[in-house]
Amino acid sequence: MQSLGPPRVRLVVVGVEGEINLGFIARLAANFAIDEFYLVSPVASPESSEARRFAANGVYMLDRVIVVDSLEEALKGVDLAVCTSAKIGQASDVLRHAVTPREFAEEIAPRYESVAVVFGRESVGLTRDELAKCHLLVHIPANPNYPVLNLSHAVAILLYELYNTRRGEKQLHEPARGETLERIYEHLSWLAEKLVDRERVSQVKAALKHILWRCSITGGEASMLYYFAKKLRKRLEAC
Amino acid sequence: MQSLGPPRVRLVVVGVEGEINLGFIARLAANFAIDEFYLVSPVASPESSEARRFAANGVYMLDRVIVVDSLEEALKGVDLAVCTSAKIGQASDVLRHAVTPREFAEEIAPRYESVAVVFGRESVGLTRDELAKCHLLVHIPANPNYPVLNLSHAVAILLYELYNTRRGEKQLHEPARGETLERIYEHLSWLAEKLVDRERVSQVKAALKHILWRCSITGGEASMLYYFAKKLRKRLEAC
Repeated sequence: MQSLGPPRVRLVVVGVEGEINLGFIARLAANFAIDEFYLVSPVASPESSEARRFAANGVYMLDRVIVVDSLEEALKGVDLAVCTSAKIGQASDVLRHAVTPREFAEEIAPRYESVAVVFGRESVGLTRDELAKCHLLVHIPANPNYPVLNLSHAVAILLYELYNTRRGEKQLHEPARGETLERIYEHLSWLAEKLVDRERVSQVKAALKHILWRCSITGGEASMLYYFAKKLRKRLEAC
Repeated sequence: MQSLGPPRVRLVVVGVEGEINLGFIARLAANFAIDEFYLVSPVASPESSEARRFAANGVYMLDRVIVVDSLEEALKGVDLAVCTSAKIGQASDVLRHAVTPREFAEEIAPRYESVAVVFGRESVGLTRDELAKCHLLVHIPANPNYPVLNLSHAVAILLYELYNTRRGEKQLHEPARGETLERIYEHLSWLAEKLVDRERVSQVKAALKHILWRCSITGGEASMLYYFAKKLRKRLEAC
């Protein structure tokens, strides 16, 4: 298990109605390594077979879910509570002023040790009373003609954003080492000298060099390129 | 309808098996204003009542879906084709080297006029032959103990990332105007002069000023603050 940076994340869902959604949300809680999972007065049961089926290998999250009666209880002990809504307000409705998931995850969340992200019911979302209990509102920008995502997809996007923050900026693959790029370039520049019109050699070599060092080539890709360039050179040396 | 920047986005799903997933994906295609929606040899039918029900108000996307027999057909005419996978490879398996959704959406996609994002079957994803037909692979970083998202949630994250790119960096709300902040500050600094110990006045005023101008306060929030500060001052003037 890789180590994740701050913040600790508590997922809170208020009054979830659908068993399929509940299952999907549990799966997402596992996919994105959520620390705590709270349900406030759920309509759908975490024990229902439908929820458990759609949770797939995240079903353990349904076993460790904490069910409470009020949003206050679900927010106890976190540094920052963030509500979510598919609806944002006019200038005058400050309660419905929101930040984007990106701004929340990249700029705000890292300043706190623990955050709760709160999602509302599929039918009516969170009430204004519930919104007023959070420190911030987050809204996912979407098509103004149909901005309302299914609950579980909104959860996916918020948890994905927080996961990105917590895992840091790590690349997925080891980058190529400079010396490997040098060895590729050595073969390619030998080939350029051999094949390219004299007056163009330096431009072709510059293009090859810039591309090789600019394109964040992975170690594995670099091995393939080196192998390929060596084959080309061998063949041409034999001609 | 707000205008979206490049690229045009074609969503391609190969061999989708579940009607619920197909419905959810159509809804997401509407939520994130996808330009074209292709299905390659779907197992689930776009006409099934389950798919149509879960598509909710995005059901029109199921009516305009284009069904084709091969991935080649689905990729015709796009500048960049991107496959997705829950599995990435070791250094030596270059075919499974991937970039993140963030890198894809922010750095690569904007360079192309049109992109196709390709998703595979729920059960087995995309075959290696299919992966080889795309220019790039995208992988959503997730919990190494359970990195496999449900298909529709992977679609949600990719379309969300592309939507962010296409809508640009616009804030959700109009920021407060400088003159409004000045007027708030004028009242607050009057209050500070009135109430705060002489040797601390300049520090309190500096704190107020820094916070007001730093915190990207919205126009609506600024109106509330101005109203509140004015009330405070009025009351104190009467004392």
